[in-house]
Amino acid sequence: MTAASRLVTIYDPTLRDGQHAVRHQLGVAALRGYAQAADAAGVPVVEVGHGNGLGASSLQVGRAAVGDDVMLSTVREALPHSRMAVFMLPGWGTSDDLRKAVAHGADVLRIGVHCTETSLAERHLGFLREQDAEAQCVLMMSHMATPAQLAEHAAIVVGYGAQAVGIMDSAGHFLPADVSARIGAITAAVGVPVIFHGHNNLGMAVANSVAAAEAGATILDACARGFGAGAGNTQLEVLVPVLERTGFSTGIDLYALLDAAEFAERELMPAPPVTGSLSIVSGLAGVFSGFKHQVLDASVRAGVDPRDVFFELGRRQAIAGQEDMIVDVVAELGARQLGVHGVRAQEIGA
Amino acid sequence: MTAASRLVTIYDPTLRDGQHAVRHQLGVAALRGYAQAADAAGVPVVEVGHGNGLGASSLQVGRAAVGDDVMLSTVREALPHSRMAVFMLPGWGTSDDLRKAVAHGADVLRIGVHCTETSLAERHLGFLREQDAEAQCVLMMSHMATPAQLAEHAAIVVGYGAQAVGIMDSAGHFLPADVSARIGAITAAVGVPVIFHGHNNLGMAVANSVAAAEAGATILDACARGFGAGAGNTQLEVLVPVLERTGFSTGIDLYALLDAAEFAERELMPAPPVTGSLSIVSGLAGVFSGFKHQVLDASVRAGVDPRDVFFELGRRQAIAGQEDMIVDVVAELGARQLGVHGVRAQEIGA
Repeated sequence: MTAASRLVTIYDPTLRDGQHAVRHQLGVAALRGYAQAADAAGVPVVEVGHGNGLGASSLQVGRAAVGDDVMLSTVREALPHSRMAVFMLPGWGTSDDLRKAVAHGADVLRIGVHCTETSLAERHLGFLREQDAEAQCVLMMSHMATPAQLAEHAAIVVGYGAQAVGIMDSAGHFLPADVSARIGAITAAVGVPVIFHGHNNLGMAVANSVAAAEAGATILDACARGFGAGAGNTQLEVLVPVLERTGFSTGIDLYALLDAAEFAERELMPAPPVTGSLSIVSGLAGVFSGFKHQVLDASVRAGVDPRDVFFELGRRQAIAGQEDMIVDVVAELGARQLGVHGVRAQEIGA
Repeated sequence: MTAASRLVTIYDPTLRDGQHAVRHQLGVAALRGYAQAADAAGVPVVEVGHGNGLGASSLQVGRAAVGDDVMLSTVREALPHSRMAVFMLPGWGTSDDLRKAVAHGADVLRIGVHCTETSLAERHLGFLREQDAEAQCVLMMSHMATPAQLAEHAAIVVGYGAQAVGIMDSAGHFLPADVSARIGAITAAVGVPVIFHGHNNLGMAVANSVAAAEAGATILDACARGFGAGAGNTQLEVLVPVLERTGFSTGIDLYALLDAAEFAERELMPAPPVTGSLSIVSGLAGVFSGFKHQVLDASVRAGVDPRDVFFELGRRQAIAGQEDMIVDVVAELGARQLGVHGVRAQEIGA
């Protein structure tokens, strides 16, 4: 850390976003062990929870192996130095979940909303400020909005009480110039710290995160080994030394961080994330890769190419919660294929 | 492909650089199957061989499962449309190997030399030009030279007859700005196509390759799923659509390329490359990650931290062929640890 280096605060959602990769089945020993290792490395903030956040454990998106209360108390105990963060999607979680998380010692509470649906965050951000709890807001699927729109919505949530605001590249669609433009616009529009949260569908998570820092973001999310659904998140133990080389400081100990990542690879995940075909396609199409299993199931049954389904979902701007659209798209693509076969059959005189 | 898009020619060394990840054990069926899939996708050039190139199969760096003759004839037959490239390190391979490769139908012959040892390439490049064979030269471990030095050596090998010249980021050390500076300097210094070959130790292989194209490189190397030693190479099926989105054209069919990558994941590798701790450390240290196994073996025996060994090798600018230095570094670090223990023992009066 040189005198001239700029501080970036790393948030580590390994124990929250990583849950998506294991269908929310992280157990108490894994939660405790990783939190201790991250704390020992000096990771400033560790985020924990069901992949979809507080209150989301359900049949619909998957039941977590460990409930919110045990998850929060386990990780809180395992963090003598680091702060603890939680994430909540309004609708999945409620004010009661936020109150409970504060009582469990959550230091930072992050509300996630679709990038242009910020009004959904008003009540919860206001509630948190009344509780004197630290409130942040992240705009999801942020590639679906222009830099100006994101700046406008960032200012709106700061007005609601958010003490930091930023964007998630939920589909892993961004290239560095896209990130620079958006973070730059938000940084110019608000007077609070700006957050960037990347995914690696196009192999750009680290480069995008560095671009975000260079454009003014001071909070970056990253996970051990990139632990997360599909292509995964920004790889934490790569991002930290790259930031340090680029003129930023994180206060994190590299060797201890590498040890934490090795613990994560060994104890949290069956294997580190791979950038497979559907991750690449969902990134290109700008569709949340969490759609993958449902797209695959429906496509295989109907005999259509799941890659076509992703690109069509992208054209229709499908977002999480609109999984019904998968069924429509598969049916339409299937019908189109049948049409083509019919024409061909006529052509050969059948 | 828009009218304004600039053409980038993709070279695919999956069947050469990927060999490092499987100790050169790719068999005939794997070689044939992948070459056919790459050809079907329209990959313009497929590179094949032992990981260390023509003539390198040996006890010292590992015997290949398939000899050069069979490897070349198998892949040649499997490429009805794509051109075939081979790689050679002078010393491991000789002019006889080059002659044999030309007879087997190799279209492009690439000579690799340490970035500041270009005189080693003179004879072979001259020999190839006499044979009227297409000759290229790549400068390895290029992070160890300045942009000006690389430009100077690039011009030297063009003088020897190289019809394309470029750099390998053999240690995976570069960040995009490093690549831009070096490719820019080389492009300004020579009138032939410029090559970039990246590794992913710092998660930057795709971003670095795009930076190279933007700085003037028109030949980019990339491997299916990044197949290669340690953190692997640039991931081919990610790079291609990212290039297309950035304003370059490759002539490659995306779906067929994704199919080739799935074949590679299934038939060529036990698992896709992971950016593990020693890959990150070797990238930061600027040391060829091929040192990994020897560093680990020696470090574990001596009870020293292999990460310290990598950083010390980086300070000493160790390059391939200098593996003996590992033994020295491990011994010195081990002795220093003992010294510290000795002092501590005295301090506590033992």
